Amino acid sequence: MRIYLAGPEVFLPEARAIGAAKKALCARHGWEGVFPMDPPALSPSGEMDWRRIHAANELLLRGCDALVANLTPFRGVGADPGTVFELGFLRALGRPVHGYTHDPRPHRARVAGARPARGGWEDAQGMRVEDHGLSENLMLEGAIRAAGGVMLRAEAALDWRDLSLFERCLEAIRDA
Amino acid sequence: MRIYLAGPEVFLPEARAIGAAKKALCARHGWEGVFPMDPPALSPSGEMDWRRIHAANELLLRGCDALVANLTPFRGVGADPGTVFELGFLRALGRPVHGYTHDPRPHRARVAGARPARGGWEDAQGMRVEDHGLSENLMLEGAIRAAGGVMLRAEAALDWRDLSLFERCLEAIRDA
Repeated sequence: MRIYLAGPEVFLPEARAIGAAKKALCARHGWEGVFPMDPPALSPSGEMDWRRIHAANELLLRGCDALVANLTPFRGVGADPGTVFELGFLRALGRPVHGYTHDPRPHRARVAGARPARGGWEDAQGMRVEDHGLSENLMLEGAIRAAGGVMLRAEAALDWRDLSLFERCLEAIRDA
Repeated sequence: MRIYLAGPEVFLPEARAIGAAKKALCARHGWEGVFPMDPPALSPSGEMDWRRIHAANELLLRGCDALVANLTPFRGVGADPGTVFELGFLRALGRPVHGYTHDPRPHRARVAGARPARGGWEDAQGMRVEDHGLSENLMLEGAIRAAGGVMLRAEAALDWRDLSLFERCLEAIRDA
């Protein structure tokens, strides 16, 4: 099984080392981890600009059987948009999607100034705040649930470099 | 052409009125706008909980020929995760995807404390900041570009309820 390793770790200085460590954890189960910084099997032509990085990642995604997304909040309340795009992409292809988050709080608790209103909760701008006890937007967790996937939330906040929850996620996928 | 109207407007108190106004703008071009709060053609069974909302929206997505995403930053630097999930979903199905943002700033200018480092830019946590002159993560704009889609950025910040940029986006799709 080839697993796409989606997550904002690609923005860390030690991104490649983290990718290698995640792949090593996949290999313990006999799986191949595919990291967004890997060279694509079929390399698109042109220079290494943003269009080529995008094209390479879409090729990697299409070649994977499953996806594990690091959905830890990134520069705001929600997950990294690149990671979420990839989750939606593999879900549309009907392949299993899984996720985990290093933030122990449910979505609602992360929205500053959330207060009861309109029979639910809303933020300071008057926009509704999802209150389903989930970590993320219901489309993300709905997709993971519908795919029979694993979704894990840390019991206490973890550093970006901590791979213990990712490791537990792989074990839960193996046991599922 | 059936166009899925993705965006965080669903969280506004006047969500249904905005959906109706977006549909009316689509109808001017002979297109049918599909809003995430529409009843699905084939209604999944069970109660109206988050799993059913997700299932209904995936059905609506699969029935659409194209997607226009409101990628305005939502509760942080990036776009609404639900919207981004839907963009990735339709892109994986090979259908045209388009987007617009009410925030005139490029991605890099939205990241607080972004500074030159490692031959590029990084944030206060030491995580790399994309600096491609784009509004959003390169996977999102890469997908729109690869699909031959339209991506518009407001010249000055617009309110959530302002539909002028959405209207211009539809005109650009018609002219493309």
